[in-house]
Amino acid sequence: MQNFTLYNPVKIIFGKGQIAELANQIAKDKKVLITYGGGSIKKNGVYDQVMAALSGYTVMEFGGIEPNPKYETVMRAVQMIRENQIDFILAVGGGSVIDGTKFIAAAVNYEGDPWNMMTDSASIKSAIPFGTVLTLPAAGSEMNCGAVITRGQTKIPFMNPLVFPKFSVLDPETTTTLPPHQTANGVIDAFVHVIEQYITYDAKAPLQDRIAEGILQTLIVEGPKALKDHLDYDVRANIMWCSTMALNGLIAAGVPQDWATHLIGHEITAVYGLDHGQTLAIILPNIMAVKADKKRDKLVQYAERVWGVTDGTAEEKVEAAIAKTREFFESLGVKTRLSDYDVGEDSVARLIKQLEEHGRVAIGEHGDIDLKQSEEIIRRSL
Amino acid sequence: MQNFTLYNPVKIIFGKGQIAELANQIAKDKKVLITYGGGSIKKNGVYDQVMAALSGYTVMEFGGIEPNPKYETVMRAVQMIRENQIDFILAVGGGSVIDGTKFIAAAVNYEGDPWNMMTDSASIKSAIPFGTVLTLPAAGSEMNCGAVITRGQTKIPFMNPLVFPKFSVLDPETTTTLPPHQTANGVIDAFVHVIEQYITYDAKAPLQDRIAEGILQTLIVEGPKALKDHLDYDVRANIMWCSTMALNGLIAAGVPQDWATHLIGHEITAVYGLDHGQTLAIILPNIMAVKADKKRDKLVQYAERVWGVTDGTAEEKVEAAIAKTREFFESLGVKTRLSDYDVGEDSVARLIKQLEEHGRVAIGEHGDIDLKQSEEIIRRSL
Repeated sequence: MQNFTLYNPVKIIFGKGQIAELANQIAKDKKVLITYGGGSIKKNGVYDQVMAALSGYTVMEFGGIEPNPKYETVMRAVQMIRENQIDFILAVGGGSVIDGTKFIAAAVNYEGDPWNMMTDSASIKSAIPFGTVLTLPAAGSEMNCGAVITRGQTKIPFMNPLVFPKFSVLDPETTTTLPPHQTANGVIDAFVHVIEQYITYDAKAPLQDRIAEGILQTLIVEGPKALKDHLDYDVRANIMWCSTMALNGLIAAGVPQDWATHLIGHEITAVYGLDHGQTLAIILPNIMAVKADKKRDKLVQYAERVWGVTDGTAEEKVEAAIAKTREFFESLGVKTRLSDYDVGEDSVARLIKQLEEHGRVAIGEHGDIDLKQSEEIIRRSL
Repeated sequence: MQNFTLYNPVKIIFGKGQIAELANQIAKDKKVLITYGGGSIKKNGVYDQVMAALSGYTVMEFGGIEPNPKYETVMRAVQMIRENQIDFILAVGGGSVIDGTKFIAAAVNYEGDPWNMMTDSASIKSAIPFGTVLTLPAAGSEMNCGAVITRGQTKIPFMNPLVFPKFSVLDPETTTTLPPHQTANGVIDAFVHVIEQYITYDAKAPLQDRIAEGILQTLIVEGPKALKDHLDYDVRANIMWCSTMALNGLIAAGVPQDWATHLIGHEITAVYGLDHGQTLAIILPNIMAVKADKKRDKLVQYAERVWGVTDGTAEEKVEAAIAKTREFFESLGVKTRLSDYDVGEDSVARLIKQLEEHGRVAIGEHGDIDLKQSEEIIRRSL
């Protein structure tokens, strides 16, 4: 097992009716800014529950944080906080709202251009406190200290322990009104997070492997159920908990990681605007295929334990596991080829240029996915 | 899934050579009290590593915290801290030293008789900060806020979020010099912690089940390896991580729990002085047998997934799982009958009296293990 440090002080408040707990988590004298996205929370009752819980507080609102939150948008919230002496933020939404709120929290008192935080996260010296009410299980942002922000055609992540949420309220009932494609994208995002911390090489960390496999197995069973019966509480609860557990640092502890799928996927979203989950469903099977040699042992273990593939040679098991992964994504209604989204062959050069510009020239757990291999992966994804 | 709150701010610093990290975790101006047990840390090099890391700090020592730490002992440390203006404690040892240190940390500024904390943990209003260097994986105390203290023949637990360690250093190399029976007891303690949060009834929380099964499967594979080759680093690392994960709140989130094995086991230790792990190995198989009806579905799942028992009726699977559990404990060199420890039939009445005195009259996940059922469990354990 590799050495590691694991620290995660986020208080998770999970279950039916837990939004009412907000009043016990935020000091009464705080001036609260609620951040949210396109306004679905005003239609599905979440906004009303939040406002009821915050009755008696001074509350302001900042809506309109878009999927793949933009620098220009979140900087407007920073301005609002500075002008109104806000001292607590409550992010109500999915990963984009929470990611945007992390940037906002750190930017408020940042000296200099806050965009510098993205490339020099150690320069963050403070952040104003914030909590979250999660409404879209996917990104895992509710229980980690990372965020992804987009400026122009640059979509990049930053991490800093100062932007852990103080608490996150996870009420699975808030997710029953999600459109099916958002449920599906969320399941895929969580699934791929796990794969990226699991399908690398053997680090003699069997418990981490078992937990990763447990999340994958649960998503494989529960994901399709959520699309069949969108009101099943336990199904929603299990997907929500899986997506949080997929990226809260636990399964990364002591093992190597390969974030190539996300890094290539981010470029596809930045240039062509595909949903984040769609880009992962496109890229992952092809990373598995191109890196099958180096990842063989883990892919065989994945085939056997997660998909129950026990017959055949190692190569056949790997092939079967990749096919089953793709079928799983497609079964959730998410297409797995760039051509399914009208992205053609000219994307190859375009995406390689993006990767080069962002310094993604040696990615994967061995740092051996160079631009040539990325090109092979993207070409297979057409 | 049941509603839950999960909060665990302990920073885990895991791996080879990590004791040197102490200097980065404790402010230089702190006056530090090192607490430890019988002195094994002075023979195995751990004490020297700690003192090297704390070079330049003002350090005092309090040794002699015994297994099943006694109220009288830890109160002497409280006195020492009050007299010497200590403002940080570093517990170096296993669960008993860490449990004792939690009591000490909370007692220093407690108003009134600190023993009251044991029955009214909400009365704890502050605790002085402390960290731990774990040398014996077993209790899980390094990453939770619970502790068990003994006074006379009363051995009882308390919990309070104020006694979470600030950090815990887990260097698996510190555990290679453990005597085999301590390694075995530790594996059994962790194993039983998991069982007590897993073998209850179906709460529709499949991920929690998978994680629990993953810890059990890992302990079953790694435990015997540690006894065969006491120097294998990865084996030690995996046992250490399993024992921490077994009782840090994660697998308890959203599911019912049954702590009857620990509660009955505590009475055996209090009266007859058996090792904690021994008492668990004696009681657990008989709780499984006596509660087989109510726990049937989970026991069948345990048989199938953890032990690979797929043939036979549900009853046969349950029987096989109980037999395999007992065999596992015995294979680690830990006997599973009271008579193996010269505890005879007169213990039944004695232990029932203890349980009654301590109010353990309705235990288990349904609160339906009354004194009559406890008697049946103890009688089967003879």
